[in-house]
Amino acid sequence: MTQSPYRKRLDAFRRRLREKTPCDAAWVSQPHNRRYLSGFKADDPQINESSGSLLIDGNRCLLLTDSRYLVQARDEAPDFEVLEVKNGIHTLLPSLLREMATGHLGFEEDQVTWGLYRKVSQALDGTVSVSLTPLGGLVEAMREVKDSDEIAAMEASGKLIGSIVNELIENLKPGLTERKVAWMMEGMAAEAGAEGVAFPPIVASGPNGALPHAVPSDRRLQSGEPIVLDMGVRLDGYCSDMTRTVFLGEPDQVFRRVYSVVRQAQLAGLREVRPGVQSDHPDSTARRIIAEAGYGPFFGHALGHGVGLATHEGPRLSPLRPVTLEKGMIVTVEPGIYLPGKGGVRLEEMVLIEAGGARILTPNARYYDFQG
Amino acid sequence: MTQSPYRKRLDAFRRRLREKTPCDAAWVSQPHNRRYLSGFKADDPQINESSGSLLIDGNRCLLLTDSRYLVQARDEAPDFEVLEVKNGIHTLLPSLLREMATGHLGFEEDQVTWGLYRKVSQALDGTVSVSLTPLGGLVEAMREVKDSDEIAAMEASGKLIGSIVNELIENLKPGLTERKVAWMMEGMAAEAGAEGVAFPPIVASGPNGALPHAVPSDRRLQSGEPIVLDMGVRLDGYCSDMTRTVFLGEPDQVFRRVYSVVRQAQLAGLREVRPGVQSDHPDSTARRIIAEAGYGPFFGHALGHGVGLATHEGPRLSPLRPVTLEKGMIVTVEPGIYLPGKGGVRLEEMVLIEAGGARILTPNARYYDFQG
Repeated sequence: MTQSPYRKRLDAFRRRLREKTPCDAAWVSQPHNRRYLSGFKADDPQINESSGSLLIDGNRCLLLTDSRYLVQARDEAPDFEVLEVKNGIHTLLPSLLREMATGHLGFEEDQVTWGLYRKVSQALDGTVSVSLTPLGGLVEAMREVKDSDEIAAMEASGKLIGSIVNELIENLKPGLTERKVAWMMEGMAAEAGAEGVAFPPIVASGPNGALPHAVPSDRRLQSGEPIVLDMGVRLDGYCSDMTRTVFLGEPDQVFRRVYSVVRQAQLAGLREVRPGVQSDHPDSTARRIIAEAGYGPFFGHALGHGVGLATHEGPRLSPLRPVTLEKGMIVTVEPGIYLPGKGGVRLEEMVLIEAGGARILTPNARYYDFQG
Repeated sequence: MTQSPYRKRLDAFRRRLREKTPCDAAWVSQPHNRRYLSGFKADDPQINESSGSLLIDGNRCLLLTDSRYLVQARDEAPDFEVLEVKNGIHTLLPSLLREMATGHLGFEEDQVTWGLYRKVSQALDGTVSVSLTPLGGLVEAMREVKDSDEIAAMEASGKLIGSIVNELIENLKPGLTERKVAWMMEGMAAEAGAEGVAFPPIVASGPNGALPHAVPSDRRLQSGEPIVLDMGVRLDGYCSDMTRTVFLGEPDQVFRRVYSVVRQAQLAGLREVRPGVQSDHPDSTARRIIAEAGYGPFFGHALGHGVGLATHEGPRLSPLRPVTLEKGMIVTVEPGIYLPGKGGVRLEEMVLIEAGGARILTPNARYYDFQG
């Protein structure tokens, strides 16, 4: 690489800040946004405990962090001036903003709590004349379209989960608990060098599969029932997300049919994922197939969502608030049918939108063909 | 049990709300606070994605959640009326608050983002006359003193991490990577029925141990160096937290001395943890021993923190903002000495404050005696 991806992203961010907002500087504290712009990899240790903030204007870019993270920050974010925060970001901002002669400071309104906003605005009050302006998802919007470094990272993350799910399916047998299977998956992810799982793996067997967000239990896998495996890894910061539904032994007629309907809905949805299409269109295409088969009420969630540094990000493939799909976006396509008390089938691919359509990033052939 | 712990907590919360705030109703959305008052166990799926909110006044208690969690919410929070949220909490609050004739609604200012606050206040504006008032950590303050159900859960969580760390130490050998050891620990937690780890386990060998918050790396354990193991599990929602520093083979004179100083500081700190003491006192006691041994600049963090539904919660054993320790509080006592480039030693117990002093909840004898 000739240029750091962070330099390029920073340039693009500054341009957007200038063109789309009244702000002359931005305070970026959302962990994924912070990593995206700076390379600083630390997560926040827990809710309301920040590991750092970026402060960016046309001339300077600062990374403000506490003593725990100074070494890591200097190492991972060489394009940024790293400064130490001692008693909360609100104690440092007034003097820095005065130095930078900031008039309008953009902040992330979906990250900054009301309490922190109050602390910062009280600290600024009377000392510097800065107005605080919500950034309105400026970085999140950039993150929806992946650059070449991100595509490479997402390909690697998708490939890894594809092979893990493959190996996991080979090792399934009746009698294993859902929880044990989830742990086997986590071990494979760790052994393969992933930072961890992208989200707690879902292993939902039999009736548990009727809950789209089931938590692995002590229930034992049984022959013939659908087993939903929804998993992802986090590799070099980037998440993957895929789902297969498998059977140990032969499913009954109901689930053979349900599976075939979900698979057809998925393939139809995948064909409609391409640049220029409105994001609600793949959803309505897949939904129509499920509805026509009589299962409309049993597909309650959206068809898909963006994936990247976060498992759930923009754009959503949903009936609500459609956006135009673009080259470089990465989304899931995951229709499902959930029959209360009986079980569920969900099939999910993570795909990159290219000029010619959707390219699957989660390569894994574990599909059944129950038709014919 | 004759009475649900949630009923008791709810009664105590209503009393505090009435006595300590101007609010006649409260909106509780912080996941641990939500679980503490209602029993609803769901975590929030990710930053800015809520799995539910409580709305509590003198007469009613509601749990507002979306379709994904309705079954779980009804099952886990039988004392609450469960209502479905379809398009965001801000679309539901105005009519509910009108029904409840709420005048002052308390909200959690360290949980609610500025963006969500704006949405809610805009939705209320013009339709109902409700003023929004920060709750100022009302539930967090209750959580600092554990009730009998919580103490039982914390004992179980502490006991489990004690035995896991014991087993882990038996299986350590030179050549294992830090990452592998961390994964072994996670597997033991899963096998033992924990919901997961309380925080990503720290396995910091040799020079890595000089970073208090080191992330497990591919570095291999070596004979003679200090290896910091800082780990906890989450069992039935409750976190444990303990640290041992171990050596494979004989440490050198420097680390024998460092270890002994940390151990003496810890024992001295533990003796000062009892009801009625100011929370900065155990910290200053332990800190003085480390300073007198000449290592003052190498102990940069606070002596301890509260543990419960969260790994880090109140009260802190720190020089800042002291509070009075009370019976029923559960805190860590974890002095450390960190020598840059060389390594670190940290020793941590999690203790329950009883009438007679601190009772250790993380039973594990893995200490060395290098004195004499």
